[in-house]
Amino acid sequence: MTETRLGIPAIVHEEVCSGVMAREATIFPQAIGVASTWAPELNRQLADAVRAQMRAMGSHQGLSPVLDVVRDPRWGRTEETYGEDPYLVSRMGVAFVQGLQGADLTDGVLATAKHFVGYGASEGGLNWAPAHLPPRLLREVYLYPFEAAVREGGLKSVMAGYHELDGVPCHANQELLADVLRGQWGFTGSVVSDYFAVNDLHSYHHFAQDKQQAATVGLGAGVDVELPATDAYADALTRALDAGEVSEARLDEAVSRVLRHKVELGLFENPYVDEDAVATSANAERHRDVALEIARRSLVLLKNDGVLPLLAGAGTVALIGPNADDARHLLGDYSFAAHIEALVEARNRRGLLGEMMTIPDDLEIDESTDGVPTVRDELAARLGDRLRFAPGCDVLDPSTEGFAEAVAAAAAADVAVLVLGDRSGLTPGATTGESRDRSSLDLPGVQEDLVRAVVATGTPVVAVLVAGRPVGSDFLHDECAAVLMAWLPGETGAQAIAEVLLGEVNPSGRLPISYPRGVGQIPVFYGHKVSGGRSHWHGDYVDSPVSPRYVFGHGLGYTSFVIEDATVGSADVRAGDSVGVEVTVANTGDRAGEQVVQLYVRDPQATITRPVLELKAFARVEAAAGQRVAMRFALPTGQLGFYDRSMAYAVEAGQIEVYVGFSAADHTHAGTFVISADPDRPVSKVFTGTAEVRQL
Amino acid sequence: MTETRLGIPAIVHEEVCSGVMAREATIFPQAIGVASTWAPELNRQLADAVRAQMRAMGSHQGLSPVLDVVRDPRWGRTEETYGEDPYLVSRMGVAFVQGLQGADLTDGVLATAKHFVGYGASEGGLNWAPAHLPPRLLREVYLYPFEAAVREGGLKSVMAGYHELDGVPCHANQELLADVLRGQWGFTGSVVSDYFAVNDLHSYHHFAQDKQQAATVGLGAGVDVELPATDAYADALTRALDAGEVSEARLDEAVSRVLRHKVELGLFENPYVDEDAVATSANAERHRDVALEIARRSLVLLKNDGVLPLLAGAGTVALIGPNADDARHLLGDYSFAAHIEALVEARNRRGLLGEMMTIPDDLEIDESTDGVPTVRDELAARLGDRLRFAPGCDVLDPSTEGFAEAVAAAAAADVAVLVLGDRSGLTPGATTGESRDRSSLDLPGVQEDLVRAVVATGTPVVAVLVAGRPVGSDFLHDECAAVLMAWLPGETGAQAIAEVLLGEVNPSGRLPISYPRGVGQIPVFYGHKVSGGRSHWHGDYVDSPVSPRYVFGHGLGYTSFVIEDATVGSADVRAGDSVGVEVTVANTGDRAGEQVVQLYVRDPQATITRPVLELKAFARVEAAAGQRVAMRFALPTGQLGFYDRSMAYAVEAGQIEVYVGFSAADHTHAGTFVISADPDRPVSKVFTGTAEVRQL
Repeated sequence: MTETRLGIPAIVHEEVCSGVMAREATIFPQAIGVASTWAPELNRQLADAVRAQMRAMGSHQGLSPVLDVVRDPRWGRTEETYGEDPYLVSRMGVAFVQGLQGADLTDGVLATAKHFVGYGASEGGLNWAPAHLPPRLLREVYLYPFEAAVREGGLKSVMAGYHELDGVPCHANQELLADVLRGQWGFTGSVVSDYFAVNDLHSYHHFAQDKQQAATVGLGAGVDVELPATDAYADALTRALDAGEVSEARLDEAVSRVLRHKVELGLFENPYVDEDAVATSANAERHRDVALEIARRSLVLLKNDGVLPLLAGAGTVALIGPNADDARHLLGDYSFAAHIEALVEARNRRGLLGEMMTIPDDLEIDESTDGVPTVRDELAARLGDRLRFAPGCDVLDPSTEGFAEAVAAAAAADVAVLVLGDRSGLTPGATTGESRDRSSLDLPGVQEDLVRAVVATGTPVVAVLVAGRPVGSDFLHDECAAVLMAWLPGETGAQAIAEVLLGEVNPSGRLPISYPRGVGQIPVFYGHKVSGGRSHWHGDYVDSPVSPRYVFGHGLGYTSFVIEDATVGSADVRAGDSVGVEVTVANTGDRAGEQVVQLYVRDPQATITRPVLELKAFARVEAAAGQRVAMRFALPTGQLGFYDRSMAYAVEAGQIEVYVGFSAADHTHAGTFVISADPDRPVSKVFTGTAEVRQL
Repeated sequence: MTETRLGIPAIVHEEVCSGVMAREATIFPQAIGVASTWAPELNRQLADAVRAQMRAMGSHQGLSPVLDVVRDPRWGRTEETYGEDPYLVSRMGVAFVQGLQGADLTDGVLATAKHFVGYGASEGGLNWAPAHLPPRLLREVYLYPFEAAVREGGLKSVMAGYHELDGVPCHANQELLADVLRGQWGFTGSVVSDYFAVNDLHSYHHFAQDKQQAATVGLGAGVDVELPATDAYADALTRALDAGEVSEARLDEAVSRVLRHKVELGLFENPYVDEDAVATSANAERHRDVALEIARRSLVLLKNDGVLPLLAGAGTVALIGPNADDARHLLGDYSFAAHIEALVEARNRRGLLGEMMTIPDDLEIDESTDGVPTVRDELAARLGDRLRFAPGCDVLDPSTEGFAEAVAAAAAADVAVLVLGDRSGLTPGATTGESRDRSSLDLPGVQEDLVRAVVATGTPVVAVLVAGRPVGSDFLHDECAAVLMAWLPGETGAQAIAEVLLGEVNPSGRLPISYPRGVGQIPVFYGHKVSGGRSHWHGDYVDSPVSPRYVFGHGLGYTSFVIEDATVGSADVRAGDSVGVEVTVANTGDRAGEQVVQLYVRDPQATITRPVLELKAFARVEAAAGQRVAMRFALPTGQLGFYDRSMAYAVEAGQIEVYVGFSAADHTHAGTFVISADPDRPVSKVFTGTAEVRQL
């Protein structure tokens, strides 16, 4: 306000992938863990906490949610996503948008859905590589969560992806940024560039011949705002304007969108924040509580032969592994600590990120994660003398010097808990995160050898995977007595892990992404076509099954649930109407627990081939031991359409089969209904139905 | 002629992937080996030999060439293809079409290009799985070889693929079968179904609701002929006709295309063959000579530290490995022996292939490969007592019982030759071939262990890979002294291998497909976009390089070549004209050899992003020791266009960089020229230029 001619207040943006990327702000579980909760309401609370922290520190635009659908976990940013399924991604995304933007934008923050579009489908899982997406797949899977965020969620901003689609970089894709986003969906917000990506049209993609043409192309295609700062949109754009290559009307349009944001955000009235209140509001206890509630539900118990929960008072525990006593390793790549490492690396390797991202030499940096407890801290607090710790090895370092101590500890204990996995970040020392793509799903470093050595002791082994992507180790999954997928659970993650291991919390996370057996199976995802997901005609690969190690939606708990009843309310429905699906679930175990009831549909025959299953609804339910829960899903037929031969969204007449269950492989046929369609009465797309849950 | 009302002669079709799939017909190297010759003229001779053998036995339609571009070698049919590059595939394909159809179709055979289109790009490398191909990629890479075969090669028949593209099975894809193939390319031949694939629209893809609708959809989309026999096009089609679902005009059109074929083939004049001449003409010596010439040039020497050639008279050789003494393993999946195994399996497992493919219980089957020499046979004939043989292990069997004998043989020898790899076929015992997709590029079975055991003896090891796909073993490629990729070299393959090992033949095969380090790198291909083929921003995967083990076009020999001079003839050229590129190559070694000179272009900046390199011409040249060879490539600018934003083929104004060399990584900048384009003078697509070679 003080440095521009018209005194216009600034929009300050920040990364918010696992909370605000600022020191002392709450570090939530990484997005893939949030998605594992299958609880959009918790993501709304997360975003609401982020909103409060951002507003307190004077920041108004958050560069999330990541709505990339990912089916290739080689990609390092898999951890930043909500997984493989467009519907689950959309539910998480809409909740985040609504939580971040708030009921009233004068106290809200602009959500920025990214990376528009298909960024997670890159060739070879390589960051920034082209994605190959034919038009219908693009619309049904990759555009879908963005469409829901815009049309249902009221999204205010979209960030274009770094990559190209079919020879056209996303920052130059007018067809998508203008025709689809604004024309077809009615988006009225702003489109922002990814960092440096306008000039990348020239320097990276060789699509524009210089910075001036990059500015012309980017603005012309619909990129309103350049991030992180004006570069191509500075002098180069001025030259393009002077040369008549860019119209003033288009510039005015972009500017007006930003000004409207500032008005909506109330910045003209309240451009400044109360600086004294920032620190106290940053990591308020209530935000930490939200993080903990999410972390507890984000842990996915993949396998359990009965060793878990570890019984109170029974025996000794050997705690082993590189992620057992490292708070930093609990955090995702967009945590403050991880990003600071990248900036330090950039400072040490001049020019790596360009001048705009260089931090001054004399700036003191605090990369510490003080105050974030480790798994060891949390287990020690609960087990005291019963716990013995031996790290065994590092995540990446090839040294096996610590093996002997780890093996001795395991041999002497009643159970061994191995906390293994990744270090997330952006630097060469990281094994997951942005620019940290892998060509394997094996455990990094010598961790596989550590698992073998510890299992060889004969002591039952519980593997806890603190990791950004699925771990494809046959030995680990076959030989460990239990496997808990913890993802990157954030600052409260260690507490949640300890609580689950000891049975204080009944685990209830569910996989938002299929868990491959190994890299050779990629892509493996539940919603393949009937002609996919198998090798005709023998079915499996020569050397491995085609099925995933653990299926989408899978997750165990310490009690048992059954579907007592599942019925479809009507056998016939008119296109445009909804169908009711009644489900009764019972907790048949001996303790309280939560379960995620998943509703899938299958269109058995259509004029465009359909996935073998499509998630269309789900509900997280809670039940005491022996208790039954009834729920009613209203399934709008507007959710059941697809893009027909002319690429128009259509709800087609015919049968729809409904399945209800606890994963994409564990479900029961609730019934089949027939849609009668009237071509003269086109049905609009609907993004979700409703679910009413009632404890019996 | 005797069993139909009008006495119309029949067209008999046959598979001809590596020669006619009939007993005693010449078994040529599998297609991926043929492509490794980079000698389309040899493929023309191959097809000419096939033509002669087919005509002699009364067969008139050959179900080749396979024009699938493949960048995912997990797919079992990789061996049936000409590799990853659309231009190389097109040159091989056009030559095959012209050789098979001959100068005069009355003595020719209909070529059938397959599998239209994108079949080799299936999800997960899974046979029959959907391919995800956006429109421009589809046209530039996957349709391109078909377009060349139609427009340049005069192709007579096209077979649709089993798979779907973006929700539409290929047998239902009118846009491609009619609009592109006939409308845009002017194709006037017939479209045939893949085996059973019309009914698969119903039974496999769930796209048609019953067989009648499958017939309606298939015929309506443009599938003229159902193979292997009428099924959906029998009663079901009659019912569809009666119901008015199919027009008689469309039926007449399909029938007239088949009748025209029969007229062109001269079947009305000469419906029968001289049965007595069949056996003698089947495997004439001259056909075998063609097979041998191809086999010799199909072997790609990937690595050689100097151990090869094995010096005559110097020391003893231990011959080891499951493919050293097995003639069957030299053959591709469409050899008679391999297919007979599949039919026997189908007989034993009722219904596997449907009633149409069932062979009678009382039919005696000869699966033998008598008369096909093994590598052991050929080496023994040359080395006599100097050769000692120990198989070591089987291709797939887990037994290591034979290791000790193999290790002892290696330890006692001066050099060990390990012949490893695949068994190609369609049954569970095969590791490559149709329906034999793998999730790994590792050596099958315990072969990797055998390599380690033999290398541990300290005896220099030559690895010969008789395999259908690249072998991704770090240890093998790092530790063996030489690696010879033999693909599946056919009935003369063992001779060619022995000749190359002993230096009787100077190896000159070049990779038609990038050779990945392992499955986690897939897809790896040289012609990626500038934004692909690397992980931004660190470049490599966390756990491996992004570069292939051996690059496209790579291959060593026993002499050395250098590019002495390479110049572009003009700095400016009008779109529509050609540019001359003059190249002088010298054989700087001490023996005669052949080299493949490869010409690549790079468009450094365009309105659609371009591959970092594109092969546009090549020439196989021969030179005595010390000899120089001059060549002149005429490069038509009509070859340098691409599909613009409106999906029109356009040759754009601007720079083109020309590189000449011996692989996609080993080349020199010959020069850069500038195209001046006139929008009012659109330039047609040209498929190839010319190369004049002159020995100096």
